[in-house]
Amino acid sequence: MFSTVVMDLKRERFEEVLKEKKAETGAVHDTDLGAAALKDLVARYKRIVKEETGHEFPDDPYEQLKMGINAVFNSWYGARAVTYRRLYDIPDDWGTAVNVVAMVFGNLGETSGTGVAFTRDPATGMPNFFGECLLNAQGEDVVAGIRTPLPVQALAKPLPQAYQDLMKTYKKLERHYRDMLDLEFTIQEGKLYMLQTRVGKRTGIAAVRIAVDLVNEGVITKREAVMRVGPEQLAQYLYPIFDPKQEGKHQPVGKGLPAGPGAAAGKIALTPDKAVEMKERGERAILVRRETSPDDIHGMNASVGFLTSRGGMTSHAAVVARQMGKVCVAGCEALDVRDNATIRFGSLTLKEGDALSINGFTGAVYAGEIPVVESEIIQIIQGHLKPEESEKYRYFSTLLKWADEFRTLGVRANADIPEQALIARGFGAAGIGLCRTEHMFFAEDRVPIMQRMILTKTREDRERELAKLLPLQKSDFIGLYRAMKGYPVTIRLLDPPLHEFLPKREELMVEIARMELNRADPGSIAEKQKLLARIEELHEFNPMLGLRGCRLGITMPEITRMQVQAVMEAACEVTREGIKVVPEIMIPLVGLAAEMKAQKDLVREVAADTMRRYQTKFPYLVGTMIELPRAAITADKIAREADFFSFGTNDLTQTTFGFSRDDAAKFTDFYMNRRDRCPRCLSREVDQKTMQCRACGLRLSGTPDNILDADPFATLDQEGVGGLMKLAIERGRMTRPDLKLGICGEHGGDPASIAFCHILGLDYVSCSPYRVPIARLAAAQAAIKEASDGNAVRPAKRRLANRVVRRTSRLRK
Amino acid sequence: MFSTVVMDLKRERFEEVLKEKKAETGAVHDTDLGAAALKDLVARYKRIVKEETGHEFPDDPYEQLKMGINAVFNSWYGARAVTYRRLYDIPDDWGTAVNVVAMVFGNLGETSGTGVAFTRDPATGMPNFFGECLLNAQGEDVVAGIRTPLPVQALAKPLPQAYQDLMKTYKKLERHYRDMLDLEFTIQEGKLYMLQTRVGKRTGIAAVRIAVDLVNEGVITKREAVMRVGPEQLAQYLYPIFDPKQEGKHQPVGKGLPAGPGAAAGKIALTPDKAVEMKERGERAILVRRETSPDDIHGMNASVGFLTSRGGMTSHAAVVARQMGKVCVAGCEALDVRDNATIRFGSLTLKEGDALSINGFTGAVYAGEIPVVESEIIQIIQGHLKPEESEKYRYFSTLLKWADEFRTLGVRANADIPEQALIARGFGAAGIGLCRTEHMFFAEDRVPIMQRMILTKTREDRERELAKLLPLQKSDFIGLYRAMKGYPVTIRLLDPPLHEFLPKREELMVEIARMELNRADPGSIAEKQKLLARIEELHEFNPMLGLRGCRLGITMPEITRMQVQAVMEAACEVTREGIKVVPEIMIPLVGLAAEMKAQKDLVREVAADTMRRYQTKFPYLVGTMIELPRAAITADKIAREADFFSFGTNDLTQTTFGFSRDDAAKFTDFYMNRRDRCPRCLSREVDQKTMQCRACGLRLSGTPDNILDADPFATLDQEGVGGLMKLAIERGRMTRPDLKLGICGEHGGDPASIAFCHILGLDYVSCSPYRVPIARLAAAQAAIKEASDGNAVRPAKRRLANRVVRRTSRLRK
Repeated sequence: MFSTVVMDLKRERFEEVLKEKKAETGAVHDTDLGAAALKDLVARYKRIVKEETGHEFPDDPYEQLKMGINAVFNSWYGARAVTYRRLYDIPDDWGTAVNVVAMVFGNLGETSGTGVAFTRDPATGMPNFFGECLLNAQGEDVVAGIRTPLPVQALAKPLPQAYQDLMKTYKKLERHYRDMLDLEFTIQEGKLYMLQTRVGKRTGIAAVRIAVDLVNEGVITKREAVMRVGPEQLAQYLYPIFDPKQEGKHQPVGKGLPAGPGAAAGKIALTPDKAVEMKERGERAILVRRETSPDDIHGMNASVGFLTSRGGMTSHAAVVARQMGKVCVAGCEALDVRDNATIRFGSLTLKEGDALSINGFTGAVYAGEIPVVESEIIQIIQGHLKPEESEKYRYFSTLLKWADEFRTLGVRANADIPEQALIARGFGAAGIGLCRTEHMFFAEDRVPIMQRMILTKTREDRERELAKLLPLQKSDFIGLYRAMKGYPVTIRLLDPPLHEFLPKREELMVEIARMELNRADPGSIAEKQKLLARIEELHEFNPMLGLRGCRLGITMPEITRMQVQAVMEAACEVTREGIKVVPEIMIPLVGLAAEMKAQKDLVREVAADTMRRYQTKFPYLVGTMIELPRAAITADKIAREADFFSFGTNDLTQTTFGFSRDDAAKFTDFYMNRRDRCPRCLSREVDQKTMQCRACGLRLSGTPDNILDADPFATLDQEGVGGLMKLAIERGRMTRPDLKLGICGEHGGDPASIAFCHILGLDYVSCSPYRVPIARLAAAQAAIKEASDGNAVRPAKRRLANRVVRRTSRLRK
Repeated sequence: MFSTVVMDLKRERFEEVLKEKKAETGAVHDTDLGAAALKDLVARYKRIVKEETGHEFPDDPYEQLKMGINAVFNSWYGARAVTYRRLYDIPDDWGTAVNVVAMVFGNLGETSGTGVAFTRDPATGMPNFFGECLLNAQGEDVVAGIRTPLPVQALAKPLPQAYQDLMKTYKKLERHYRDMLDLEFTIQEGKLYMLQTRVGKRTGIAAVRIAVDLVNEGVITKREAVMRVGPEQLAQYLYPIFDPKQEGKHQPVGKGLPAGPGAAAGKIALTPDKAVEMKERGERAILVRRETSPDDIHGMNASVGFLTSRGGMTSHAAVVARQMGKVCVAGCEALDVRDNATIRFGSLTLKEGDALSINGFTGAVYAGEIPVVESEIIQIIQGHLKPEESEKYRYFSTLLKWADEFRTLGVRANADIPEQALIARGFGAAGIGLCRTEHMFFAEDRVPIMQRMILTKTREDRERELAKLLPLQKSDFIGLYRAMKGYPVTIRLLDPPLHEFLPKREELMVEIARMELNRADPGSIAEKQKLLARIEELHEFNPMLGLRGCRLGITMPEITRMQVQAVMEAACEVTREGIKVVPEIMIPLVGLAAEMKAQKDLVREVAADTMRRYQTKFPYLVGTMIELPRAAITADKIAREADFFSFGTNDLTQTTFGFSRDDAAKFTDFYMNRRDRCPRCLSREVDQKTMQCRACGLRLSGTPDNILDADPFATLDQEGVGGLMKLAIERGRMTRPDLKLGICGEHGGDPASIAFCHILGLDYVSCSPYRVPIARLAAAQAAIKEASDGNAVRPAKRRLANRVVRRTSRLRK
């Protein structure tokens, strides 16, 4: 009751006093404190309450109850709750409820006890009752880690009736709720009381297995199973994991937030420099810090994982981990980073260089090194393991097969090279939605040719260099076509500004200055200066808005000619091999219908010419990316010239918001976290009770708004960018009712954005090869959701044109 | 007839042969050629025709006639005609007509003659019959410059009847056509024949005077007068001019295209370096070149005007002149640039350093130096001349007064400092539509404070520096308010990215490299490195899309606080002086309603606080610029927080097109001139008859399209950017029907864009102070046009909300 009553006060003050008391009395655990010490502690606690609230801690139990109830209600606005809701997209206005029930006691002797359990294994999904309990103990004791709990099966002997009741009850509950549950129970003098049950949290791997098993057990339908797994959870199948048998043998020494998925084992590094040193010695470092800061980046880069004692899912360590693809466990409270030599987990002391393992799926931290293995799914895709050898793969592929039965949205992958295309096919991509041809030019053997091409000034010289690139491009396309075996391959013509292929302007300037001062050979200086002069010519203040995309192909049509020739020659040759080829040539950064027409005419001319030379014919499409607001607004005119639209939502987000993707984090991070701050001085020190800023004294009239709810580069901004997409679809279909529609921005792999694309009526989404399974599941869920919203299953093959009208009109509401 | 028949052939070949012949025979003028030479010339001409067309020049007069007729029709597609149409916005599909009439002869002896005339003076508009004639001559002779023509009045004595008829006829024609006309006539054996008449071309100054005079003469209505003057023509009132009395005394030595308005007199410079040299000596240089190229830029910059012998209204010299605001006469065919020492106009030879005068309004070129004077209108605005002393001002202001009777669109000016505000008021601006507060920080005494403010890392330090800027900003605003005497003043908060106030990154990098190599004082190096580190922190890949606009004010609210405090304190103080003040605070670069709300709340808080301190009250508005596509799309949400919208069409054009204004010329120049080129190899050598490219052999199926019709930064793109504006207005008025609407991009001074703004239903346009008269006239014309399109005059005070619905629905058609 006390802890509930004071839960909206500053926890740190109580913890501090407790720590002091333990130091005074030499106690290690709370339970070591004697009666006198406890009495004094209570007095001190009461003093804190008085200071923080201005009132005495009440003696009247009804007053206490009322305070407790209020405290629960208020907890809805606590910083942790707010963060949690933000992370899991729970609306602020739902609020919370409070249950008041009579107390049962698990600590009335050896016939009493308490425990927590899951109806199935929350880590693997195996259908075993799984839990922990303690005899003669109250709830908190089981999870507090002071006494080591027993497996729940240990109750069978001392309390057979209660155990039997528990077994019966969990099965009944699972049948009733039709899902894996977690339970809390207390046994008071031999009698079982269920305290609470709710749908149990689980890993992604468990989620899939449980959903599939429940279908096989006849408990739920396939449709329900598909809805039961969060699409993002599938990513867990792809990360390296601890060898499951080995991990089971270890007891965690601490637990934090699973902030960066995957499993990592290595040696403890307590400073970034140490991590770098270890990496140089060929060792795997786990960087352990109180919290990380931008100064640690070099060390983070050198580590395989990070562990911190402070900070949440959005702390620096967590964000960087997910960006870098590193494993991270953040905010591990059991961890005490003492100095630069040792760390402690409770009584266990480890030193720099000792082995440590962290599980980024569960947040578990282990002393010692647990072997890490490549995910089975990846091993299968790469051909190192046979599908039938993997139980995990069976569950994974079964769920996705069911998902495919429901989804109407196609899923393609963004792949630039044959290896990526093969992975995409392995994950079930039905085509390539974006092949970025420029990535082919960044290869080591090609960049010099590309540079020479750019540095020439005449068309003739450019054509000579382009002729050298032609066979290289062509062989890339041949590889892609063969890998995709008849599935469409969307090839985007050269997109980035040319200076991306050249040395950096400022570095060259510094180099020349140095050469001049060092009296270097005048010939070499002149050479460098010539290069600099051309780079200066190409220099742009805002390259994102400069000479790139189709603007290159229009002002230097020989580039488009070479690329289209490579695309079509490759297609002719692979067609002759008997493999079907469906090239879809995509013109980037179109903003004016005349741009599209100019490039399309050129493509058609070169294509007809190539087919004539090869005496081969096959259908191909010429379409455009919609990645500029002007393209969306004039989509009716552009659609006259384009067979398909692919929404390039990365650039469309940049131009719609006026946010540079490379620069926006400077303010968008703040935009997403403004809520916690004083709107005047931006201090985080806002007293949540009085709503007064402790730093500048401003009295707030309410919680400040966040400016952005989500990063628009991660999740599609449905209102702004989505509004333009809607316009583009409506207008595009006005002049070309059978216009093919896709999306190839990063949003194509984001479940919320995929759902929106389904509602918009796109034909397909295209995403990174590794996100194809996520997209398949998200697309299925969107279709099921739409059907159940409309109380009917939507026939899969309805005319797209009708679909979009109905859907977009719903969007308008 | 011959010249008509062969007019679609290459003129150069005939000219070459003629030149050869003249060289052979030593003839100076064509007329010096003897009969034998002429006969040979005809034979050679016929040979050219044979070679160019593959056919003999026909002897059959009907065949000749047919060819002549065809040639006229074909001339519609000639390069000159195409360029002309593009310059004057004449649609390509109008086509041309051919009149076939009997010939009259002015060269049948001394009772015959020919002439051209204007019914009023085309340069000044004075109501004098004005023309030139020759006795015993045919049409071409008058304009060819071989014989010096006589003033038309010289006909009175030798041919009194014809002269009297001419006087009667011109008045009759003027009455009939109700405008100043140009005429061509021939007198054959004493009898007057009118060959053609059409509305006469005139200078802007003449256009105004003629329109006003015609109203006073009762010939046309005020409404017609307002429609008779091109808004851009008013600019001629503002450029420096030749002293009219002095110019009248000079005979032009050549005539070219009036490519850069104004009058310039100085010394001939034949190379860019010479121009620079002259400038350094304090002399005014007129750069004379065959044509200019980008390599000449330094010399062009050093000159007061340019004269070229080649190139048209869109040649390099012409474009640069208008950009730089220099005087330019381009394509002066009489000019022969021999070498780097002398030039010739016919028989007149001038050398480098000789005096030359060029009139950029008329294209006239004079040997010698004609005095240049400041425009009378500017002298009046600046208070150096009294209005009643200027006849020009009387006409100018009369027409604008009439324009104001018709226009419903308000006209404001963009002005940052009191001097600009005073000029704007002088030109009749009813308020400031954009005061860019950052321009106040670029002043020499302020930039160091601004830099210190930026380089600090804490809020406290920033606030200390901002406090120093406060009194400076405040005094600026006081000046503006006083100048605007109760008219609204729209103040935009800080907009540009902060690095614009700091040294350039790459220059600093080079400097540090130099210091290091020179072993400079380590302390100074460290200082510079610290500065560089902060600049690196602020560095952005695309500053246009970076940390600027309201993003600054939200992440550093103390900047907004200081600015708003300055705005409001100044307003309080000026209000106390008894001057009405209407501040309109404008939040830049809003893309999210939450941004607007956050800044508005802050503005309101500071404003209320300041008014309380001063115990003064007055109304003020808080609005936003609509300059991002997302703002337009979500205008309904943003309008809830904003009292007004001002369309920032510069940035809106950048983001809608994805064009960086600083970089786009790299391809937009080509986009606007693609029509003349081969779409494959971009060569200009396309044979207009066979439509085959002479460079790469491609056979064109038609004239290639231009990608852009006009520069979207000069003339508003109605389809794309305008489409977003329309959306923004519709949606904004949905949630705030009385939303005040304006435009403050450069387009606010462009007549075509102003007409569009009128149709959109904006409340005002805001433009540079010097373009205010142009905007007033353009707004009047838009209103008159709308009224006559709708067959009714629109009452000026109709509810705006209705207006926009009707207007925008018309746009949709």
